[in-house]
Amino acid sequence: MAPASAHAFQKKVIIDTDPGIDDAMAILLAFQSPELDVIGLTTTFGNVSTSMATQNALHLCELAGREDIPVAQGLHKSLKGDTKEHAVDFIHGKDGLGNTNPPAPKGKPIDMTASEFFISKVKEFPGEVTIIALGPLTNLGKAVEMDPSFAKLVGEIVILGGAFAVNGNVNPAAEANVLGDPLAADIVLTCGANTKIIGINITHQVTMTGPQIEELRRSDSKYGRYLCDVIMCYLNYHRDYYNIDAIYLHDPATVIAAIDPSLFTYAEGVVRVQQEGICRGLTLFNNTRKKWAVPTAWCNKPPVKVAVTVDADKLVVLLKERLMAS
Amino acid sequence: MAPASAHAFQKKVIIDTDPGIDDAMAILLAFQSPELDVIGLTTTFGNVSTSMATQNALHLCELAGREDIPVAQGLHKSLKGDTKEHAVDFIHGKDGLGNTNPPAPKGKPIDMTASEFFISKVKEFPGEVTIIALGPLTNLGKAVEMDPSFAKLVGEIVILGGAFAVNGNVNPAAEANVLGDPLAADIVLTCGANTKIIGINITHQVTMTGPQIEELRRSDSKYGRYLCDVIMCYLNYHRDYYNIDAIYLHDPATVIAAIDPSLFTYAEGVVRVQQEGICRGLTLFNNTRKKWAVPTAWCNKPPVKVAVTVDADKLVVLLKERLMAS
Repeated sequence: MAPASAHAFQKKVIIDTDPGIDDAMAILLAFQSPELDVIGLTTTFGNVSTSMATQNALHLCELAGREDIPVAQGLHKSLKGDTKEHAVDFIHGKDGLGNTNPPAPKGKPIDMTASEFFISKVKEFPGEVTIIALGPLTNLGKAVEMDPSFAKLVGEIVILGGAFAVNGNVNPAAEANVLGDPLAADIVLTCGANTKIIGINITHQVTMTGPQIEELRRSDSKYGRYLCDVIMCYLNYHRDYYNIDAIYLHDPATVIAAIDPSLFTYAEGVVRVQQEGICRGLTLFNNTRKKWAVPTAWCNKPPVKVAVTVDADKLVVLLKERLMAS
Repeated sequence: MAPASAHAFQKKVIIDTDPGIDDAMAILLAFQSPELDVIGLTTTFGNVSTSMATQNALHLCELAGREDIPVAQGLHKSLKGDTKEHAVDFIHGKDGLGNTNPPAPKGKPIDMTASEFFISKVKEFPGEVTIIALGPLTNLGKAVEMDPSFAKLVGEIVILGGAFAVNGNVNPAAEANVLGDPLAADIVLTCGANTKIIGINITHQVTMTGPQIEELRRSDSKYGRYLCDVIMCYLNYHRDYYNIDAIYLHDPATVIAAIDPSLFTYAEGVVRVQQEGICRGLTLFNNTRKKWAVPTAWCNKPPVKVAVTVDADKLVVLLKERLMAS
């Protein structure tokens, strides 16, 4: 394809990420996708600390020969100042990349925070920037707080987060990204931006099986080989905790929601996030047509689009093709 | 049928109720059902105050010629001392019976609280008493607190309450009965009793349409005529707030869960109730097979049976037949 003409149809995307094994898959997929022009990576905590996320984001850019992409480091704690209570090195490895000990990157993050970078880019390209949020929503929540025009200027926010009408993955109530910063999630989901949110009710339908992972390895592609080594730790986690010989493709599925929107359908409505108690981090979607007798916390808030279906088969084929073509 | 032989198969039931229009349907249905031996009514707040619920329970017994059934008055406030924030006279009428101005009953409640009555009956008939709970769970929660043996001695608790994986009916998070006393609901649902809970995800599938209500009126049965007058207020509420020409059969469906258990299927697991914040009163069912990395509020609690399907057509036929036979 001709880069110039392809460019005209490209979406400018910033990926807010905490690599993280499925984040690494998602980032390399984005690099392989002509539909997307990755104009920056920003980092958050979650799968790893923000500092390690920054190192890993720089490493992935260097692995891909994309040192041109700016990496902006995000906040180290939630908007309320919490850090993650429990490390998840049993999921992503101590290094966030499946204990593969990636080399220290040569590059450095830019001299701007993630939230400053968001604001600067949506002002440079009003209505054109898609932010794909693969971790806790702290950096986005901060941007909304910092600049009242941010929500109107951003083109689209595509969030991996929440558990709609299903159990969470940290506990029965909460999904990890939203639980990482429930306040930021509530701020972002009610800020009025053009927002899609893809919960684990969707991403738990999108798996890559053990045999499919081996197929990726045998493809002898650059990213295929790299990712298969990284993925093993994540696959073992799924075998132990979910009793499945497969991995959930949370982050790659969310990047594909930006690449090919036709693979998802959405319902529109207001989502609020529970802030305290046993259901802290629960995402509650007002999906009823009932008229309420008394105003509720969901009234007079702007709606978002909540994913309700995914064409998982087509999605996995697309992911494999892109990664194997590297 | 021969009452003596029928009696041998009858379930001893106590109905904890806040009549309430669908409560009235449920109570008269229970009186018409040879499978059930109604050994008492107990009263709670919700659709009306506890005092009015007691008057209406006595009235319904007198209407049915069942003055032999003891009525025990329950608590007037939730376990935390709250009263209902908003009257629901737009749903059930100022008198709880569709503004039909029922005559003052001649009878009086017995000299025992609802919770004392529960405890006395489960001790008299250990393992044999089914308590059908159609309102907030305050009286049951109090019984659990008062007597550590109650949960083991009660045969079964069948609860109308909660909203599982769907929006509530008071607000997007909460169903009315659980929101009426979230603490009591959490106590009852985790007390270890043999418990079924039927949420509005089920009862919203079970409707009586405007034409079916007219059919009930034309049947010229005693309860048919009585209930059709009472129901009009409730039907108008459904037309206004749900935009349907039908009523939800919450309470009658729950009595039928005791009459004919084959019309429902259940999933077993732990249910907890959110106590504070915007999702106060939300019922959260741990329905995943995931192994949790960190203990959750759902761990090491006894399971209950949560209704997941209902044969709505058969249920409505059964209800109509029973009421029309009066």
